[in-house]
Amino acid sequence: MCQNHGVAYIEPGVVEVQSIEYPKLALGDRQCHHGVILQIVSTNICGSDQHMVRGRTTAPAGLVLGHEITGLVIEAGRDVEFIKVGDLVSVPFNIACGRCRNCKVGQTGICLNVNPSRPGAAYGYVDMGGWVGGQAEYVMVPYADFNLLKFPDKDQAMAKIRDLTLLSDIFPTGYHGAVSAGVGPGSIVYIAGAGPVGLASAASCHLLGAAVVIVGDMIPERLEQAKSFGCEVVDLRKDTPLADQIAAIVGTPEVDSAVDCVGFEARGHGSESGTEHPATVLNAAMSITRAGGAIGIPGLYVTGDPGARTDAAKEGSLNIRIGLGWAKSHAFYTGQCPVMKYHRQLMNAILYDKIQIAKAVNVEVISLNQAPKGYQDFDKGAAKKFVIDPHGMIPN
Amino acid sequence: MCQNHGVAYIEPGVVEVQSIEYPKLALGDRQCHHGVILQIVSTNICGSDQHMVRGRTTAPAGLVLGHEITGLVIEAGRDVEFIKVGDLVSVPFNIACGRCRNCKVGQTGICLNVNPSRPGAAYGYVDMGGWVGGQAEYVMVPYADFNLLKFPDKDQAMAKIRDLTLLSDIFPTGYHGAVSAGVGPGSIVYIAGAGPVGLASAASCHLLGAAVVIVGDMIPERLEQAKSFGCEVVDLRKDTPLADQIAAIVGTPEVDSAVDCVGFEARGHGSESGTEHPATVLNAAMSITRAGGAIGIPGLYVTGDPGARTDAAKEGSLNIRIGLGWAKSHAFYTGQCPVMKYHRQLMNAILYDKIQIAKAVNVEVISLNQAPKGYQDFDKGAAKKFVIDPHGMIPN
Amino acid sequence: MCQNHGVAYIEPGVVEVQSIEYPKLALGDRQCHHGVILQIVSTNICGSDQHMVRGRTTAPAGLVLGHEITGLVIEAGRDVEFIKVGDLVSVPFNIACGRCRNCKVGQTGICLNVNPSRPGAAYGYVDMGGWVGGQAEYVMVPYADFNLLKFPDKDQAMAKIRDLTLLSDIFPTGYHGAVSAGVGPGSIVYIAGAGPVGLASAASCHLLGAAVVIVGDMIPERLEQAKSFGCEVVDLRKDTPLADQIAAIVGTPEVDSAVDCVGFEARGHGSESGTEHPATVLNAAMSITRAGGAIGIPGLYVTGDPGARTDAAKEGSLNIRIGLGWAKSHAFYTGQCPVMKYHRQLMNAILYDKIQIAKAVNVEVISLNQAPKGYQDFDKGAAKKFVIDPHGMIPN
Amino acid sequence: MCQNHGVAYIEPGVVEVQSIEYPKLALGDRQCHHGVILQIVSTNICGSDQHMVRGRTTAPAGLVLGHEITGLVIEAGRDVEFIKVGDLVSVPFNIACGRCRNCKVGQTGICLNVNPSRPGAAYGYVDMGGWVGGQAEYVMVPYADFNLLKFPDKDQAMAKIRDLTLLSDIFPTGYHGAVSAGVGPGSIVYIAGAGPVGLASAASCHLLGAAVVIVGDMIPERLEQAKSFGCEVVDLRKDTPLADQIAAIVGTPEVDSAVDCVGFEARGHGSESGTEHPATVLNAAMSITRAGGAIGIPGLYVTGDPGARTDAAKEGSLNIRIGLGWAKSHAFYTGQCPVMKYHRQLMNAILYDKIQIAKAVNVEVISLNQAPKGYQDFDKGAAKKFVIDPHGMIPN
Repeated sequence: MCQNHGVAYIEPGVVEVQSIEYPKLALGDRQCHHGVILQIVSTNICGSDQHMVRGRTTAPAGLVLGHEITGLVIEAGRDVEFIKVGDLVSVPFNIACGRCRNCKVGQTGICLNVNPSRPGAAYGYVDMGGWVGGQAEYVMVPYADFNLLKFPDKDQAMAKIRDLTLLSDIFPTGYHGAVSAGVGPGSIVYIAGAGPVGLASAASCHLLGAAVVIVGDMIPERLEQAKSFGCEVVDLRKDTPLADQIAAIVGTPEVDSAVDCVGFEARGHGSESGTEHPATVLNAAMSITRAGGAIGIPGLYVTGDPGARTDAAKEGSLNIRIGLGWAKSHAFYTGQCPVMKYHRQLMNAILYDKIQIAKAVNVEVISLNQAPKGYQDFDKGAAKKFVIDPHGMIPN
Repeated sequence: MCQNHGVAYIEPGVVEVQSIEYPKLALGDRQCHHGVILQIVSTNICGSDQHMVRGRTTAPAGLVLGHEITGLVIEAGRDVEFIKVGDLVSVPFNIACGRCRNCKVGQTGICLNVNPSRPGAAYGYVDMGGWVGGQAEYVMVPYADFNLLKFPDKDQAMAKIRDLTLLSDIFPTGYHGAVSAGVGPGSIVYIAGAGPVGLASAASCHLLGAAVVIVGDMIPERLEQAKSFGCEVVDLRKDTPLADQIAAIVGTPEVDSAVDCVGFEARGHGSESGTEHPATVLNAAMSITRAGGAIGIPGLYVTGDPGARTDAAKEGSLNIRIGLGWAKSHAFYTGQCPVMKYHRQLMNAILYDKIQIAKAVNVEVISLNQAPKGYQDFDKGAAKKFVIDPHGMIPN
Repeated sequence: MCQNHGVAYIEPGVVEVQSIEYPKLALGDRQCHHGVILQIVSTNICGSDQHMVRGRTTAPAGLVLGHEITGLVIEAGRDVEFIKVGDLVSVPFNIACGRCRNCKVGQTGICLNVNPSRPGAAYGYVDMGGWVGGQAEYVMVPYADFNLLKFPDKDQAMAKIRDLTLLSDIFPTGYHGAVSAGVGPGSIVYIAGAGPVGLASAASCHLLGAAVVIVGDMIPERLEQAKSFGCEVVDLRKDTPLADQIAAIVGTPEVDSAVDCVGFEARGHGSESGTEHPATVLNAAMSITRAGGAIGIPGLYVTGDPGARTDAAKEGSLNIRIGLGWAKSHAFYTGQCPVMKYHRQLMNAILYDKIQIAKAVNVEVISLNQAPKGYQDFDKGAAKKFVIDPHGMIPN
Repeated sequence: MCQNHGVAYIEPGVVEVQSIEYPKLALGDRQCHHGVILQIVSTNICGSDQHMVRGRTTAPAGLVLGHEITGLVIEAGRDVEFIKVGDLVSVPFNIACGRCRNCKVGQTGICLNVNPSRPGAAYGYVDMGGWVGGQAEYVMVPYADFNLLKFPDKDQAMAKIRDLTLLSDIFPTGYHGAVSAGVGPGSIVYIAGAGPVGLASAASCHLLGAAVVIVGDMIPERLEQAKSFGCEVVDLRKDTPLADQIAAIVGTPEVDSAVDCVGFEARGHGSESGTEHPATVLNAAMSITRAGGAIGIPGLYVTGDPGARTDAAKEGSLNIRIGLGWAKSHAFYTGQCPVMKYHRQLMNAILYDKIQIAKAVNVEVISLNQAPKGYQDFDKGAAKKFVIDPHGMIPN
């Protein structure tokens, strides 16, 4: 049990499964008696991992990837009181101490005690505190009593593990985008992006009672995936303006709420689709959201982007039509989803069959060794969410 | 067109269809140039009408009943600017001026300008301002620009009129109970009462994403109706305590939220089911709602109840286990549902097929002449919501 | 340093300063490596202690009292990471684990892990988990990283210790009552009770920007105290109805919000003032709060009251005019204040001189030996808040 | 009484008092039987008027200015029911119908029925619906029952008219900025801009209980004005970075909340203060607001700015460091203040002496003929709020 393997970033475009260190209850000099060691049951590849793998960040070679983790507790630190060895648990991607002023008000995405360089941390992510990633066989989770969500029944949970694995990030993240955009019963919503977060957000809108969920993307397979669970779609490769495509669906060129599930690597729409236009999604969102509406922004915008086309964009500064948003009294909600705020309720929605989230995002289970291939396929736009099963525990 | 017939209260247990006055744009001396006259397309019998018909109020003989109204605008007062003759509209049961401090903040259930004796008014209801009821062929609706919800497409609306007719009261009322009890995705909810409001509240919980909706009642047909759209049920005639029945369903004897859809005419549970115990629902709700939960109270509690068993209850004062609620940090939300706060969004949910509310409450369409029979059947506990179709306009 | 003295309940009407055990990092068999030991700098006598001292509860002889604690950390358990020996800290009266679902959403008043018999715990209080009270020289505080609020500067804090000592309970409790009653800029508020919580609530209303704060009580000295910081008052011994007294102040017989700072030991108003009327404050609150208003209930209501006059009241069931509240669409908020939700911001309000809370509640510092006398004076209605200074550390 | 004079925009830098038409109960062909005619008691010059006067908009010559109006009702249209001739009233600058979906939820700043070209209207403002301005002797106010706030007592109101005149715009606007930035008791706040809106926002923060209010500007007189009522200040002409200036005041380089009271005509800070940097305030706000904080943006950003330096800015598109905001989970609130949401409560705060808002913004009363001079002085940065008294009714 003291061996471990994980997915490491090597260089732009390249990841590799390597033998890595078996986890300790520590991060460097920092003791983590409050932590547990997990045997990983499932761990997903995320779109935000791609930012590193594409070389759009300063991630160092050898960084072990993976922040979407579900696992079995096999060792618990001496200070862990309520989580027990044998528990099957979901790990929120944001690491949080449970003791700072932000954690105390539920803002676990910006914990003050887990990352010396800025608020907020995550597993396996550049500039996010140095915590080892979980696309691996084993991983250490600190502040386990606070962070972990225990599934009430292990057998029941294993039977729905393809759904429950999405609680660590993209289901809550997509849901957070919808909630912060004000989505509720009867809403008409536009979701920008039909990647896994976009699809999870669209499915969340249905869970929240939305009347019409319109998903926009430029990849036909992803749009088909959105249609498969009742969404309307707009194809952004077309030159027909977005507002007109929306009007063709709901009769008016406006929606109540918009969710940006794309972030800073956005590409131009229509004939401009070849090049990056990092603010295009935000500006489109303002143009089609009705006055008084809100815009949720779970899509990642970064403080530095060495690969950007302009000097301004290199430091995360984008050309935003704020005047348009102002005229419409828009509100904008940014930032990492605080997973803990939502995961218990969303677990219930899964366990009681209120949502088929794995089906919505098209989960495909792969082995650890297939991870590099998964990264490649995902980068090409596969309409799939890859879930790594490092120990072959996931039933067919 | 200048004839009119309506359902009038005669004496305890007796209602009659009578020839009544054709509506004017006035209420006594009060001019209503802001009003419209509606040809009524549908008008529903409500459980709160029964309080009057049973003789539990001071309603005078001859009072024309009916506050759940949907209709076609056939005449508009000179001051009506945005609603037009020919519009098909839903009428919120609470009459509101749109100009007082309460209306301006959306509290249309306690409008200050439509009832000289207290805040809040309704059509066809004792002590509610004297506005003529709408279980009739024609009715006057004041402050039409503010009060009315226009359906966007008449043909589409007529095709769903059995659902849309519920927007005037019980769908928003049941929904309000759920929302004020904090119901959302993943919630575990107890609904007290499987009459039309209880069933509408249960269906609203599903729309809101609740994981488990448990409905309690003492009438088997109503419990069957609740089961028909995915609710769990508890039979309150049994001597098994409510908490145990809930534990048998969800594993713990507690729910996150409770909604009291019964009100002051509650009867005892189990072996005490023969007699009235007006606070029994509220006390049960406190006992099975977890600490930190909330209790929505759309069920009616009155300031005076001449038919009550005790002097205290005669003035609306009940024996409530407030100490138990306090120990659990419960919050309690009372009062008429402000329909306008919800009806537009719920209309969208109906029009885009997110909810089958008519099916959930088991709508049965009857003619105006069948209304007295409808009152009788409903009083006996029929698991039905009676919708009167005074002009034979509702398609089969 | 291994000696300790504390205030113990002996029998109805009698408390005594006794030699008590020096605290351990444990509660019986339960290890508390997450705890700290405090040298107590200040610890206040609370109105809710009086319920025990009057013999209205099942508190056993020998129970060490005291849940309002401020102190200096002199020993920290091995699992304490962020709080350090030497820190000067405020202790919320509600003990919370920081790891259960209630704590995670800020409902620290109903923590699930600190009291085996029900949600919620406190120091030195019957049925609240058995944690030793802090009207003593030393006390143990569990889950220290989560529970404690560290003052940023010790000298600054000692200079304002009379104010800061109120952060452990009555300032947040009074503030919570005001916030849950919807008080904000421009509000007209009625505060029932001019004991320390009532005065703290009144001062909180001013901090929140209320336009008029009306305080009602039957003790002239307490009403004078309320006047001293800008409140209006009503004398409940008078036979003039409360509504009329309010109308004489603000021109209408209504307020926007009401706060019940009395609880179940309420006495009748006017000529009925000799006897207990446990629901009189709640019923009065409904009668004078305008339709659409809210009622905050920080005053304690209990699940069992052996000393009550009626069988119903013995089990915490009171005659409440719920029908009146319903007609006015009132909302009711009960329960212990979750102190942690407010104490940091209220500390800032003190440190930056936005409020003179010690002056508002008339703090009087006494020694530990004077505590029994303090209890007696407080019981007689002294318009004072007694703060015990067990080590003589509070500057004059 | 059928003569009228008003302040008209002539050309960049020039306004003139002209004879203008006496108001009718109509706007062109649109009948306004729901309107009233006011004899104007006070009408203020606003910073947003300056955008027009500086030639930064497409305002046509002859446009009658003025959207901050308080007056006496001298004629009421036939459909006005609750407002009476003789009432002294405050006019919210946003014109609203009270009948559309936005008005019904309190978003009166984006009413759908008062401006054919976009949601939202105002008196005397380019592209805002063509309603005649109120820097005049008389003006027409439509939808009077909905829009107007009646002062309860005329004599009392006239005695405080310098304060009450600010209810039509800048007091609620500044307050809205504070509220949307999450300001409450204990907050540490940064207000960008010490013009009248900035000063009103700072005073609002005090009313809301903020612990520290820091105001930044480049005009020494305005900073002195801010100091006069208890604000801390930072001088943006200095080259010391803003964060360092804040740290010098509160010990950390961060605030809880920031309010942008400047808008798109912002100038660079420090050595860049000579030139316009339209996004500089927003970017500064993100840099100094702590993670999890919010940013209120009452300062105006426009959809088109012919006078801007860059093509992007000409269409209201600015270089915003959205990546920084995202990393800190900031929320952003834009748009016109919906005055009606706040004016009643703020009126109470004035009438009961909870705030000295006229003193905070340094009101100076001038005659109608002095208006052109007032515009000039204000444009030069006078630390004053000019209130025009067209009929000489304001007591000294």
